[in-house]
Amino acid sequence: MILSNEQKQMHWTTSSSKKRQHTGDDSTVSGLAFEPARKLGADDLNKNIIDAEYAVRGAIPMKAEELEIQLSQQPDLLPFNAITVANIGNPQQLDQKPLTFSRQVVSILQYPPLLDYEEQLVTSGAYKRDAFKRAAVLLEQIGGSVGAYSLAQGVYGIRESVADFITRRDEGETASPDDIFLTDGASKAATYLLSILCRDSSTGIMIPIPQYPLYTASITMYNSVMLPYYLDEESGWSTKAEEIEQQVIDSIKRGVTPRVIVVINPGNPTGAVLSFDTIAQILTIAAKYGIVVLADEVYQNNIYKGVKFHSMKKVLRSLQRDHPNGEYDNVQLASMHSTSKGVSGECGQRGGYMELVGFSNEVRQVILKLASISICSVVTGQALVDLMLNPPREGDDSYELDVRERKEIHNNMKTRGYLLYDTFQKLEGIECQEPQGAMYLFPKLLLSKKAIEEAKSLGLQPDEFYCHRLLDTTGICTVPGSGFGQKEGTYHVRTTFLAPGTQWIKDWETFHKAFYDKYRD
Amino acid sequence: MILSNEQKQMHWTTSSSKKRQHTGDDSTVSGLAFEPARKLGADDLNKNIIDAEYAVRGAIPMKAEELEIQLSQQPDLLPFNAITVANIGNPQQLDQKPLTFSRQVVSILQYPPLLDYEEQLVTSGAYKRDAFKRAAVLLEQIGGSVGAYSLAQGVYGIRESVADFITRRDEGETASPDDIFLTDGASKAATYLLSILCRDSSTGIMIPIPQYPLYTASITMYNSVMLPYYLDEESGWSTKAEEIEQQVIDSIKRGVTPRVIVVINPGNPTGAVLSFDTIAQILTIAAKYGIVVLADEVYQNNIYKGVKFHSMKKVLRSLQRDHPNGEYDNVQLASMHSTSKGVSGECGQRGGYMELVGFSNEVRQVILKLASISICSVVTGQALVDLMLNPPREGDDSYELDVRERKEIHNNMKTRGYLLYDTFQKLEGIECQEPQGAMYLFPKLLLSKKAIEEAKSLGLQPDEFYCHRLLDTTGICTVPGSGFGQKEGTYHVRTTFLAPGTQWIKDWETFHKAFYDKYRD
Repeated sequence: MILSNEQKQMHWTTSSSKKRQHTGDDSTVSGLAFEPARKLGADDLNKNIIDAEYAVRGAIPMKAEELEIQLSQQPDLLPFNAITVANIGNPQQLDQKPLTFSRQVVSILQYPPLLDYEEQLVTSGAYKRDAFKRAAVLLEQIGGSVGAYSLAQGVYGIRESVADFITRRDEGETASPDDIFLTDGASKAATYLLSILCRDSSTGIMIPIPQYPLYTASITMYNSVMLPYYLDEESGWSTKAEEIEQQVIDSIKRGVTPRVIVVINPGNPTGAVLSFDTIAQILTIAAKYGIVVLADEVYQNNIYKGVKFHSMKKVLRSLQRDHPNGEYDNVQLASMHSTSKGVSGECGQRGGYMELVGFSNEVRQVILKLASISICSVVTGQALVDLMLNPPREGDDSYELDVRERKEIHNNMKTRGYLLYDTFQKLEGIECQEPQGAMYLFPKLLLSKKAIEEAKSLGLQPDEFYCHRLLDTTGICTVPGSGFGQKEGTYHVRTTFLAPGTQWIKDWETFHKAFYDKYRD
Repeated sequence: MILSNEQKQMHWTTSSSKKRQHTGDDSTVSGLAFEPARKLGADDLNKNIIDAEYAVRGAIPMKAEELEIQLSQQPDLLPFNAITVANIGNPQQLDQKPLTFSRQVVSILQYPPLLDYEEQLVTSGAYKRDAFKRAAVLLEQIGGSVGAYSLAQGVYGIRESVADFITRRDEGETASPDDIFLTDGASKAATYLLSILCRDSSTGIMIPIPQYPLYTASITMYNSVMLPYYLDEESGWSTKAEEIEQQVIDSIKRGVTPRVIVVINPGNPTGAVLSFDTIAQILTIAAKYGIVVLADEVYQNNIYKGVKFHSMKKVLRSLQRDHPNGEYDNVQLASMHSTSKGVSGECGQRGGYMELVGFSNEVRQVILKLASISICSVVTGQALVDLMLNPPREGDDSYELDVRERKEIHNNMKTRGYLLYDTFQKLEGIECQEPQGAMYLFPKLLLSKKAIEEAKSLGLQPDEFYCHRLLDTTGICTVPGSGFGQKEGTYHVRTTFLAPGTQWIKDWETFHKAFYDKYRD
């Protein structure tokens, strides 16, 4: 910008009282000539945000959006009829139906006069009776209207409900509503914590590789250092404590303080589920080195194999009980959950929570202040957290339907996951771990030299090249492994297994064979 | 933290294969002894967030929350029966009813099977017919479910609706859906922009004083420099262009680049409404110095006097037309609006939008990326933006009721605002500007030396002291002027005029007289 000097200053008083040509009212201004300044470019912006990357909605999904428009305008020019959205876990965009009970309750919260029509609506079969009862309870807790700001931390009664759920889930390890913060999805909880805990450029944030790119993006935005710990693909993407501790020691040596360890369980994009033992080892490292554990547990209900989900909180309490000398008493753990995943799939409703365990009051106050600046999370999203965690109970009118719906959604996901997995198993040049949890597969692509060279000549990463060709040929939109992180020289693709039907899987198979034939060395 | 060294590293492989004592399953861990690390304190956190202040939910509102609990437990110990929440513009927490049409539509969006019961619900009087029609249109635009993530920028059809509203509001100055970003309230829009535009500690952000503390909090969090321009209380808190330009020139001289000017119109907390002429002057400064205009226009429908709201966009287009040499073509303007204010008052639903005008494509892409990382704003909030801006039209079944409700809410606010204003006018030691817009009064307190000394002896700002005493005596919760900024040596209090009834106003009057009698010099 060309700096201005005092001589250039406009004479407001003069111009508005004397020189200005009035056109009748106050609708004209000084006509003094000036050089318009230039517009801002990327160089003028916060560099940390410029540098942040988020592949889930990166180049390939953006191209898919363009193709979608093209499809609606000139469908004949493309070799497919529809875009298959497999880049983002967004079940209700595909054919997943919301849970009936949840939506009946929230519709009443949105329009409480429906309470006066209970008899009519139950008789006609539009609603179940327990939906009215639950809505009345929630309305009372919320204070009468979902249109009012709640406390920054969230509606107290809903936080009590969340605490009750955690206590049940963790087999009696109690939780307190004072430790629950209701947030707009889990993403908001993660960014609150990382924005506070990323102190400066000597702060290290440990993340699994591969990981959900919200974490790398946040670390970049908050100007801290990413400390990767690599998951072991060959053993089903397992987490190795020794790898983590080595990273801690190495980081401290080079002056980076490991401040947070992000644990995604079940894993995104890997689907791996952590054992009790592995979690205990991670907590031991956290206790020993004073590292905050950020547990992304949003897929805790998406478990498909004969494995069990152990919450980090439950394991922590167990360790604390087993170590009466207090070795684990200082562990600081934040566990996040969301209405977007599980069988709820209410992504667009932005419900979520975090439970804070072991943080000092000082730190909690800072988190509360940050939440206060955002005022509150969406109140209907808060209600959906309650409804996801506390479904109708046996004997309630909605119970059977609700159980059936939850089971069906769960089984559907499992079936699709395995169908895709089985397909990959048959194919040349693709290696896939068995799905354990979450809603993704992250197969490894064994690409030929020819394919890698072709990619390079186009200025693309090899897996990016594969995903582009997959999209161009079949309309299937995925994300290359490079967006999640992977070991040097390996290539992957992340796909959800949410898309309905089987045709897209067949299309992928056909594409894959042709791709491998074309680029065979 | 005591640094660890390699010698201290646990022997994971050994411990998990040999030394560990199994208790039957994988539920035990290495029993190696270690010193637990200390917990984090404020010094370990991001200093910019520690330093941020947000008085709207600061010390006095927090005390009010405690008193509320005390009231429910031991009501006889307090000199009042209820807390009057006047610290935050949260109409539906008080007695304001949501607009019927909006809520009917959103309830159907939440539970689309209601569409099958249209006849029954219209016949019984539960719903108006046009609610079903509108819900069907919105559902189609949304893609079938409010539970799916939308595009990061928001649902396209709703953005079209917003653009149509802006075009009507601005008397034919057209708007484009491509320029609209739907956001979780206006706060989210403001923080997106400021986080991107606060490049570093040489970036200056101009804000009016007094201001809504989201702005000062964000500037602190994003590590830039606050450049205040003082509003002129005596002329009804008017904005003076010469004051702004002087600040620009002074800042450039000391090496701080003025990058953004925040304009709150109608003002919060002042309620002042800017004239066309003043807006044009601000835009001239923006054009000349290349300063982005961040227009907080969330109170555009809360106008009480015979004044007219001019959007900055409309004024900009008018200037651009009047200056064919392009002096104003590079102006970069972001205008924000919200469902929380106006007669909508849907605070807890987190609906909002920003319109971006004149930004380079490069900058827009960064804004879009940041929105993508948050995935999307709550979809029902997006729908409420549409419903707020496009109410039923003449001839629609809901038209008359909707007009009546909107008028009643508006008039209620106006009546209460003037009632409070008239009360302040009668009182000693308090000077209040006439309410023009928004939902607040920001009277000046002329405090005695005795009161100021008493405050100092308690370690409080004088206006903070007044607000504490007001809360302790009457249960009325307000925010001291120091939370919004004020000229050195002046003291104010911000109160909403939303609380129902007149008793709290009488209580305030009684308190004020007693306070002034007690601390008379």
